[in-house]
Amino acid sequence: MKTLFSLLILLAFACMPLGMKAQEVKSPDGNVVVNFSLDSKGCPTYTLSYKGKTVCKPSKLGLTLAKDKHANAGVHETDLKEGFAVVDTRTSSFDETWTPVWGQYKQVRNHYNEMAVTLHQTSADRTIIIRFRVYDEGMGLRYEFPQQKNLNYFIIKQENTQFALTGDHMAWWLAGDYDTQEHPGQTSRLSEVRSRMDMCLNPAPGRKPDGMCDPVTGNSSTSLVSPTGMQTSLQLKSDDGLYINIHEAACVDYSTMHLDLDDKNMVLESALTPDAVGNMCYMQTPCKSPWRTVMVSDDARTMLSSYLIYNLNEPCKIEDTSWIHPTKYNGVWWEMIVGHGNWHYTNDLPSVRLGETDFSKCKPNGTHRANTKEVMRYIDFAAANNLDQVLVEGWNVGWEDWANMWKFDVFDFVTPYPDFDIKALNDYAHSKGVKLMMHHETSSSAINYERHMEAAYNLMNEYGYDAVKSGYVGDIIPRGEHHYGQFMNNHYLRCITEAAKHKIMVNAHEATRPTGLARTYPNLVGNESARGTEYEAFSGSKPDHTVVLPFTRLQGGPMDYTPGVLETDLSTWSNNPHKVHTTLVGQLAVYMVMWGPLQMAADLPENYEKYSDAFQFIRDMAIDWDDSRYIDAEPGAYITVARKAKGTDNWFVGGKCNEDGHKVTVNFDFLDAGRKYECTIYADAKDAHYATNPKAYVITKKTVKKGDKIKMVEAPGGGFVMSVMAK
Amino acid sequence: MKTLFSLLILLAFACMPLGMKAQEVKSPDGNVVVNFSLDSKGCPTYTLSYKGKTVCKPSKLGLTLAKDKHANAGVHETDLKEGFAVVDTRTSSFDETWTPVWGQYKQVRNHYNEMAVTLHQTSADRTIIIRFRVYDEGMGLRYEFPQQKNLNYFIIKQENTQFALTGDHMAWWLAGDYDTQEHPGQTSRLSEVRSRMDMCLNPAPGRKPDGMCDPVTGNSSTSLVSPTGMQTSLQLKSDDGLYINIHEAACVDYSTMHLDLDDKNMVLESALTPDAVGNMCYMQTPCKSPWRTVMVSDDARTMLSSYLIYNLNEPCKIEDTSWIHPTKYNGVWWEMIVGHGNWHYTNDLPSVRLGETDFSKCKPNGTHRANTKEVMRYIDFAAANNLDQVLVEGWNVGWEDWANMWKFDVFDFVTPYPDFDIKALNDYAHSKGVKLMMHHETSSSAINYERHMEAAYNLMNEYGYDAVKSGYVGDIIPRGEHHYGQFMNNHYLRCITEAAKHKIMVNAHEATRPTGLARTYPNLVGNESARGTEYEAFSGSKPDHTVVLPFTRLQGGPMDYTPGVLETDLSTWSNNPHKVHTTLVGQLAVYMVMWGPLQMAADLPENYEKYSDAFQFIRDMAIDWDDSRYIDAEPGAYITVARKAKGTDNWFVGGKCNEDGHKVTVNFDFLDAGRKYECTIYADAKDAHYATNPKAYVITKKTVKKGDKIKMVEAPGGGFVMSVMAK
Repeated sequence: MKTLFSLLILLAFACMPLGMKAQEVKSPDGNVVVNFSLDSKGCPTYTLSYKGKTVCKPSKLGLTLAKDKHANAGVHETDLKEGFAVVDTRTSSFDETWTPVWGQYKQVRNHYNEMAVTLHQTSADRTIIIRFRVYDEGMGLRYEFPQQKNLNYFIIKQENTQFALTGDHMAWWLAGDYDTQEHPGQTSRLSEVRSRMDMCLNPAPGRKPDGMCDPVTGNSSTSLVSPTGMQTSLQLKSDDGLYINIHEAACVDYSTMHLDLDDKNMVLESALTPDAVGNMCYMQTPCKSPWRTVMVSDDARTMLSSYLIYNLNEPCKIEDTSWIHPTKYNGVWWEMIVGHGNWHYTNDLPSVRLGETDFSKCKPNGTHRANTKEVMRYIDFAAANNLDQVLVEGWNVGWEDWANMWKFDVFDFVTPYPDFDIKALNDYAHSKGVKLMMHHETSSSAINYERHMEAAYNLMNEYGYDAVKSGYVGDIIPRGEHHYGQFMNNHYLRCITEAAKHKIMVNAHEATRPTGLARTYPNLVGNESARGTEYEAFSGSKPDHTVVLPFTRLQGGPMDYTPGVLETDLSTWSNNPHKVHTTLVGQLAVYMVMWGPLQMAADLPENYEKYSDAFQFIRDMAIDWDDSRYIDAEPGAYITVARKAKGTDNWFVGGKCNEDGHKVTVNFDFLDAGRKYECTIYADAKDAHYATNPKAYVITKKTVKKGDKIKMVEAPGGGFVMSVMAK
Repeated sequence: MKTLFSLLILLAFACMPLGMKAQEVKSPDGNVVVNFSLDSKGCPTYTLSYKGKTVCKPSKLGLTLAKDKHANAGVHETDLKEGFAVVDTRTSSFDETWTPVWGQYKQVRNHYNEMAVTLHQTSADRTIIIRFRVYDEGMGLRYEFPQQKNLNYFIIKQENTQFALTGDHMAWWLAGDYDTQEHPGQTSRLSEVRSRMDMCLNPAPGRKPDGMCDPVTGNSSTSLVSPTGMQTSLQLKSDDGLYINIHEAACVDYSTMHLDLDDKNMVLESALTPDAVGNMCYMQTPCKSPWRTVMVSDDARTMLSSYLIYNLNEPCKIEDTSWIHPTKYNGVWWEMIVGHGNWHYTNDLPSVRLGETDFSKCKPNGTHRANTKEVMRYIDFAAANNLDQVLVEGWNVGWEDWANMWKFDVFDFVTPYPDFDIKALNDYAHSKGVKLMMHHETSSSAINYERHMEAAYNLMNEYGYDAVKSGYVGDIIPRGEHHYGQFMNNHYLRCITEAAKHKIMVNAHEATRPTGLARTYPNLVGNESARGTEYEAFSGSKPDHTVVLPFTRLQGGPMDYTPGVLETDLSTWSNNPHKVHTTLVGQLAVYMVMWGPLQMAADLPENYEKYSDAFQFIRDMAIDWDDSRYIDAEPGAYITVARKAKGTDNWFVGGKCNEDGHKVTVNFDFLDAGRKYECTIYADAKDAHYATNPKAYVITKKTVKKGDKIKMVEAPGGGFVMSVMAK
């Protein structure tokens, strides 16, 4: 990765006297203003405003430390909350432009003003630093803990970072949970969070859970934060028209932050993920917290175009990134998700043991999909349709009893089932210019995965796999740990860095929500960490889902959402009665609004053949970009974006909307002047509707040039896409 | 390992009708009788008697299962305690003689009668088997769980195995603790356990803890089982003269058992070690519990000579055992334990980070003992004095902040400090016919150790180490787990089996107490798992300690007790004010009563030079045996034993006693008739006393022959040893 430092000016040093005078730092454009001060108890507080409007009222900062039994061995007990004095304040400015390995833009500007406040807690003789970085689109703040005589090891019992909001904002939120982000997304006023949660936590007699709409639904692993707990990134909109987004950046060696709402005062406070004994983080100085971020704008599109989260991460640490590449893939997956086949090989065994069960002597169940013949069919399809890789799930032994048993030795990640010829299939794929994509479901037995990881990556190298989809379904082992705790966050990162040594790209499902680490480790090409397309085969996701996720889940990194289900009625080919909650064209539009360098064409080859003309968009589309222009956007309502394909002059345009439909005019002002483009438009038909008539679409072609305008009408739950190819 | 099956007779099959009739199985000599029956609620019970005397009154058997949230996924909730019917009873007999790789005897007879009772629980349609093996010296029983439709995965919340005693026996006990066995040993009636524990748990105002005598003392990691909880092996003596010992055998994939005393009824019940969420064991059928063992005899010596625990373990699983050998060693260790030097290299850093801290740039503290010069001195001494290996602790980076910080990445086990030349030292040792012994302190960060283990073992292979002392000081990581839980028990075994692949012998300190696994994995050459000699440099151990341990701790396997501290007054060479609580000769005697293939000569070279004539016994002594004859024994009072050195005609005799002193006549009836032996006698001097005159000893030589008798007088806290060399 090339990083261009275009400007780096240390503007000023200012050593402030002790006292409680507020210190201020503004964004480069002056619109975002952060004020820092100590309150009467010496507690650090800040305020945040945008264009003169308050975003965060005085909000406290600090940390509660655990009372550890080894306190006498140097672990500290006094909280880092009060009794501070400012001993130093340094401000500076930074401006660089860096080149991401993949993403929305060819280059990214990282431009901020910084203020680092050094605080001394007299009673315990300890020093911490609170660092603010203020961007035109918001700010990040973090705690830093220098190595010092009285602060070497400490245990965080809770972080007490507040975001004191100005009112009862609209919120696009997810129930706060230490183990899953797959609850259905919610849209409500903040004041309604408690009653919505309560509806599930204390259901009225006879109330039937609504798996698509309820804030809390069954998941194989769930641990709620509180009756008003929410996940980040949390997208808010104030009544005075500000879009506010709260998240975190660079969560490394720390547990993931949730937000606990004081709904009397509309104050959000950090709620970290506990470990098995109820502690949040184990710290050794010198160290720092992740960045706590507040993005703010009066234009919703800024939420989507901003690289604030990435900018707050460290530059790329992988020297040679030539092996990291965009990947369009299909896979032996949707068949099983829908229930039309199985991951496991035999129905004979109620449980199996690695290294003991002899699968060659078991009776095949006949529904195991990861078999050589079926995989060859997917390889043929991928090769013929411009797809790079074929994911195969259920290729390795252990699926007979993998889920929900809290089983330790669940998979070895190297032993194929007897009907999966790993060598022949990789050879066949390579002969057709396609690669297989590896699958490592861990069943959340993280220690088992770590034991086998090196051998598993070696096997991938041996057969020519260069990407792995990993999974963390179910309760974590080490038992008592949560998916989003410090231990697991370190585990996920360890997987990424170990994989990088093997030149392997990682796409971790059920792992913690991303916080921009892909800037530092761009082989983290995707994550799930939200309710994916699979739910369309279970209890469904509402049509607005994919016009919320880009505002929330995608802040920290791309999602492997696995769209492209063109046969939206699953009952046409399986016993699954569900229908996808978009139009067919809406499925195509998801690729444009849910950007990322890893994109699955999730549907079956035979379904794509059925809709081959619409599938042409998937064949053609780029998934890595030199530029992105958001045409319009509103959380939960619509997003329209034009993107320029990496290294080409071609553009791809897409719009996606919620159940209300949407109209938008695409102005081709982004095209090169004096050049003609062949534009193929994939649109919902006039009478299309996600629920009643999803597969009605119209494909038209026209030549367009800079300045042309096309008015698009998106059906309820629909959208549109265009390929705009330079002639 | 060669196993000789001399006899294997399946005596009888007996399929019993449903019902509550008692079923009986006797030991081969008829002295031990076990009766099994179901009580009126269908709860399995057993009784045990010896020569007509009751040992265990009707005692219940069964398991309480956890109520798991994934019950609907096949995890069962109904307890395995009541509602059983007997559907099958099979009795058989077994007699084999096997050859241990090392131990007290050249060959071991494994002779028992067995009864396997198959029980069906109608309500849940589940079947379990309770298997009894009855030996002349006691019995073992275990639970077996066949794979079946309604029992595949289950979680044990508690095991409810009872040992209903006949009265208020004398007990040699340790406070029940999930994390340490280093509390001081206790001798009392069972009825006194509660008040002794209470003395520590609820101390009287102003009471000063007694670190040598109290049942509970400070340890870097301690988690008490209950106010009447005790460890196994528990040695008891009834008023009618029976010696009874309760322990377990073959604890594999299960958590370690403690004993909870109902002191109204004198009933002991199993108390397993919980995991981080309070569950005891995660089970997948087919599977089994460890054996629960009750040894019984009217001769205390039987407790010491019995191989019942080993016999209940599986035969050796290591095909080639030629690389496993007895090892006499010294080490760079006692200096640091006493406080005369440090494990760590620099005092400059309050904390360090693997891979980041550059020790070559740190200022050495000058007290780091694992330096090349010092280690060479130990190598020279070992080579000159018939010692096989030199342990070096503190050789690797990370000791600056290793303890009590719950630090995850604490050691890498491969990077030496700058002053430890690993290549040169190994080369030098090998040139002198000596090996270095590796040291892997894990600081209980088990996951970190597993991450580095393969590289660490490879390093050992590279430099020619073939034995490792490992350590588990402090609280376990994964946090919330205990030293004796199922996870850690599996970890310890994983270390042993992985080490075996590298032909490495393992001596794990602070690991769970052994249960005879060394029969199956004889590269487990030692464990600590009790209060070792190091405590003589801290708060002390009472003189009876080493005449209790052979009855208790040693039942499951040898202990790396690290005796041989001939300079019993530590203040003569250090600032440590403590004195060892034995006479000098008592230190030599420990080698004879605490048998094991790994024995340390713990004292400093200069101290051995000071007592070179007494040290001659350590130079000469064998540590692996073809035969052992216990001359007399009484728990906590005295043990006298004669042992025949493996593969020779030489004998070594030793006696050790408590603070009361002891007199014993050694009858040389074990010698070969018609042969003369040169006998060197190391005796306490007449006025010797462990407290007032410990270093008074007399060395005499005489020629002995079969039938000779020598009367020995052991001083308070003293003993004697003899080398009896065939002429």
